[in-house]
Amino acid sequence: MRFAFFGDVVGKSGRDGLTQHLPMIRKKLGLEFVIVNAENAASGFGITENTARELFEAGADCLTLGNHSWDQKEALTYIVREPRLIRPNNYPRLADAPGRGANLFQTESGKSILVVNLLGLVHMASMDDPFASADKELEACPLGVAADAIVIDMHCEATSEKMAMGHFCDGRASLVVGTHTHVPTADAQILPGGTAYQTDAGACADYDSVIGNDKEEPLRRFTTRISRDRYRPASGPATVCGVFVETDDKTGLALRIEPIRFGGRLKPTLPEV
Amino acid sequence: MRFAFFGDVVGKSGRDGLTQHLPMIRKKLGLEFVIVNAENAASGFGITENTARELFEAGADCLTLGNHSWDQKEALTYIVREPRLIRPNNYPRLADAPGRGANLFQTESGKSILVVNLLGLVHMASMDDPFASADKELEACPLGVAADAIVIDMHCEATSEKMAMGHFCDGRASLVVGTHTHVPTADAQILPGGTAYQTDAGACADYDSVIGNDKEEPLRRFTTRISRDRYRPASGPATVCGVFVETDDKTGLALRIEPIRFGGRLKPTLPEV
Amino acid sequence: MRFAFFGDVVGKSGRDGLTQHLPMIRKKLGLEFVIVNAENAASGFGITENTARELFEAGADCLTLGNHSWDQKEALTYIVREPRLIRPNNYPRLADAPGRGANLFQTESGKSILVVNLLGLVHMASMDDPFASADKELEACPLGVAADAIVIDMHCEATSEKMAMGHFCDGRASLVVGTHTHVPTADAQILPGGTAYQTDAGACADYDSVIGNDKEEPLRRFTTRISRDRYRPASGPATVCGVFVETDDKTGLALRIEPIRFGGRLKPTLPEV
Amino acid sequence: MRFAFFGDVVGKSGRDGLTQHLPMIRKKLGLEFVIVNAENAASGFGITENTARELFEAGADCLTLGNHSWDQKEALTYIVREPRLIRPNNYPRLADAPGRGANLFQTESGKSILVVNLLGLVHMASMDDPFASADKELEACPLGVAADAIVIDMHCEATSEKMAMGHFCDGRASLVVGTHTHVPTADAQILPGGTAYQTDAGACADYDSVIGNDKEEPLRRFTTRISRDRYRPASGPATVCGVFVETDDKTGLALRIEPIRFGGRLKPTLPEV
Ligand SMILES: [Fe+2]
Ligand SMILES: [Fe+2]
Ligand SMILES: [Fe+2]
Ligand SMILES: [Fe+2]
Ligand SMILES: [Fe+2]
Ligand SMILES: [Fe+2]
Ligand SMILES: [Fe+2]
Ligand SMILES: [Fe+2]
Repeated sequence: MRFAFFGDVVGKSGRDGLTQHLPMIRKKLGLEFVIVNAENAASGFGITENTARELFEAGADCLTLGNHSWDQKEALTYIVREPRLIRPNNYPRLADAPGRGANLFQTESGKSILVVNLLGLVHMASMDDPFASADKELEACPLGVAADAIVIDMHCEATSEKMAMGHFCDGRASLVVGTHTHVPTADAQILPGGTAYQTDAGACADYDSVIGNDKEEPLRRFTTRISRDRYRPASGPATVCGVFVETDDKTGLALRIEPIRFGGRLKPTLPEV
Repeated sequence: MRFAFFGDVVGKSGRDGLTQHLPMIRKKLGLEFVIVNAENAASGFGITENTARELFEAGADCLTLGNHSWDQKEALTYIVREPRLIRPNNYPRLADAPGRGANLFQTESGKSILVVNLLGLVHMASMDDPFASADKELEACPLGVAADAIVIDMHCEATSEKMAMGHFCDGRASLVVGTHTHVPTADAQILPGGTAYQTDAGACADYDSVIGNDKEEPLRRFTTRISRDRYRPASGPATVCGVFVETDDKTGLALRIEPIRFGGRLKPTLPEV
Repeated sequence: MRFAFFGDVVGKSGRDGLTQHLPMIRKKLGLEFVIVNAENAASGFGITENTARELFEAGADCLTLGNHSWDQKEALTYIVREPRLIRPNNYPRLADAPGRGANLFQTESGKSILVVNLLGLVHMASMDDPFASADKELEACPLGVAADAIVIDMHCEATSEKMAMGHFCDGRASLVVGTHTHVPTADAQILPGGTAYQTDAGACADYDSVIGNDKEEPLRRFTTRISRDRYRPASGPATVCGVFVETDDKTGLALRIEPIRFGGRLKPTLPEV
Repeated sequence: MRFAFFGDVVGKSGRDGLTQHLPMIRKKLGLEFVIVNAENAASGFGITENTARELFEAGADCLTLGNHSWDQKEALTYIVREPRLIRPNNYPRLADAPGRGANLFQTESGKSILVVNLLGLVHMASMDDPFASADKELEACPLGVAADAIVIDMHCEATSEKMAMGHFCDGRASLVVGTHTHVPTADAQILPGGTAYQTDAGACADYDSVIGNDKEEPLRRFTTRISRDRYRPASGPATVCGVFVETDDKTGLALRIEPIRFGGRLKPTLPEV
């Protein structure tokens, strides 16, 4: 099974990048399923029904979120009726968070793919343990038994926490991929147990920016510590960044992981298939 | 002028990786200068005179540090007599920190290269402003006038702070490169003003690990929150990770930046020269 | 029912302070139960069997812990056989933490008192939700029904998180008291629902110090950002700091809360009974 | 010389509390100078010209700020023409922050008092070193020589950083007092070198709240991690919290420090003079 995961879509530039490039990529790579992290899709902050629709129309089958899930308040109700939208799974019990943190999807060819979204804890706002949360989902839906593929979107800051999650799920998931830092990492590998891993998928964003935002205000805040304006997504052409994974149809484990980068400023790369 | 910068060397695996691969890389790429971040060279924590010597013998001309600079207390005195060892530049005034945070080196062919080490502030221990610190050095030693090349090692966690430093120095430095996260990023680019940039150089370390350390103890701490042992560098073969930069001899600005990855588990890449 | 809670005992000074003053205080105030936070009892870092014994001999009936629980590794096994030692309750599932995070004690006169230790999350290492953890204990052991008194030790940094826990438990606990900051607060009050509350109990420590430690090394670290030595508890006479609570025997709610400060440098205060 | 310092005024409740009680307190204690931390005076976030005027009319001679200084953008221009408004002193060089971080005031009787506002670094947004910043002011304006009294408002989270600042300034300032946590501490003392010290002055706010705010939204965020509304200052009667200091007219050192609490829920205390 071939699928792809794209990192945080930042604003209109990121949405337009996917609209422009994803159909070609999907076709060229023969993708059966496409997951997109959309926590910054709406003006850099959260997701709305309209921006989600753009991404679905571009070819996304599932959208994941992160620490910006609810920046747009309409997402709190939209997610209840949109099963393709996945928020972090490790909310504490009393949160009674709307929507779902994991979902099992059926592809057109009848395969099943479980997608789980997690928030890490290092340098992030606190949530319940993402390792226990992953463990519970992986025990409930074993790879190769209850799901043909399993994708963990580990949304967090620290490379150590992402790598630890990779090893924690190694042999039990098809792919563990990080999001949140908005920069693609060059460490795609298949871990010893057969799980594909990349520390960060990177963003779908203009890379002449500060993690997808216009440089002016971030530079002002870094140098003066006084904010004078809000953050705005940079408006140049996006590089869409993600990973391509091919799994073994029997085990669900990864046969291959390759980076995808296309458009904008970063050096392009597309897997040969 | 051609030079290279390698990210955080982690323990014996990282030192051995450089000893094994750097002479070939240096020769093949025609490197006139090599900088290595060595904050984790000694058993993963800091630097000693002996581990520094190994790196100099492998072909490093300059070693930079970071938040682990003084994990080995001998570094506090060693740095005073070793001008090739550079600690973060942005210590506060009362620190009266030993050693130096920037140094102008002469290459064999008579060119000059300024190396500055900075600690970022986001999710890091506090230091004085790294932007003001960079600004002061760049004003005192203008690129193309007082230095043929200028390299800024921005040692920090947040991708946003690294990208902001890239833009802040754009046109005034040859290279702004991040360290600290131990994962190479795939975003090498020349910024609009002519400064080469990559968010993180990556580590020289075994990548079957948690950022260069044996997996067992980090996984225990992440899942149980109770430490039972110390961290130990992973002992498999290292991937040496860095960037290659070629500058314009007149302006000192970058003509080219390419990632370097060699050995170990990550997909290898060496620039064609 | 009259009981007292004393904040973080720091090293020998703190232990000696309780040994010297607690018998008198216990007698004078007619205390039926005494709880002491002991996370810094052993040289400022954690607890050992010997230091615990000193505190029990001084008159403590129960010891609570915090983020320093396991600084002394022997505590990991000691706690298994010592039911009077309570560690934080909100460890994640996979931690399988040794010992217990809550315990129901019987006083000599046959009354029952539930003690719960929680770690907050703001500016602290991550744990599972302390509010859900408190809620579970309070539901399982209702005040005035299953326990004559309930004490929540909310060990954390932020005043906001402590006050929020106070209100969250208001009407369901006899006392919510903070620990960890090592400074007594002057905000003892009975909340609208009947729960006694004080943001921090303060430390049992020498107050000519930096939160109980010798000033020299903390001042060096603050001014230079370079550590040169370890922290050592200050050795002057301790002020023992805590709160006195009197509860209604029918409801378990608080009739009265008063600060206790005795010995050392801080202005002494003992409730009139 | 007798003066007083009041902690963070939170919204209308805090302003009304000072308007109602400060004239009496000022008269009763014979205060020659009154400093008020006003970073939360305007609806809990920052300061405006109108809210500042209320505080001056209530009897404040000087207002200090903190991490919320610029929440109301008009403060950026207002502070330029209002020398009685003091923002944190330790902005980095490139900030070119408006207004001033320290000012020498003349009292009606012709005495001089230097007021310095500092932001701490632990668990706070980064600033340049507050210790170096304090040192510079104290060297430039020696106590008993260039100023009859010196007050340092150390605005920060950690009790350790506040206590360290107290000792750092001991013998060189009349008073080091903390703000920001919105809870008064019960540790007023004169340090060995003669500087009066209290870890936190406390807030001028309604204490049936979460650090001065209506409980509902903070409790929601703590338990669910999802914000649904903004923070609003609690509207019950405020307890005005501060410290009273009397200095030696020859040396400027402290003869006496006593807490002030009046109105609202907390147990009232006023020094006998
Ligand atoms: Fe994002
Ligand atoms: Fe994010
Ligand atoms: Fe490192
Ligand atoms: Fe580092
Ligand atoms: Fe603690
Ligand atoms: Fe403590
Ligand atoms: Fe405040
Ligand atoms: Fe504040």
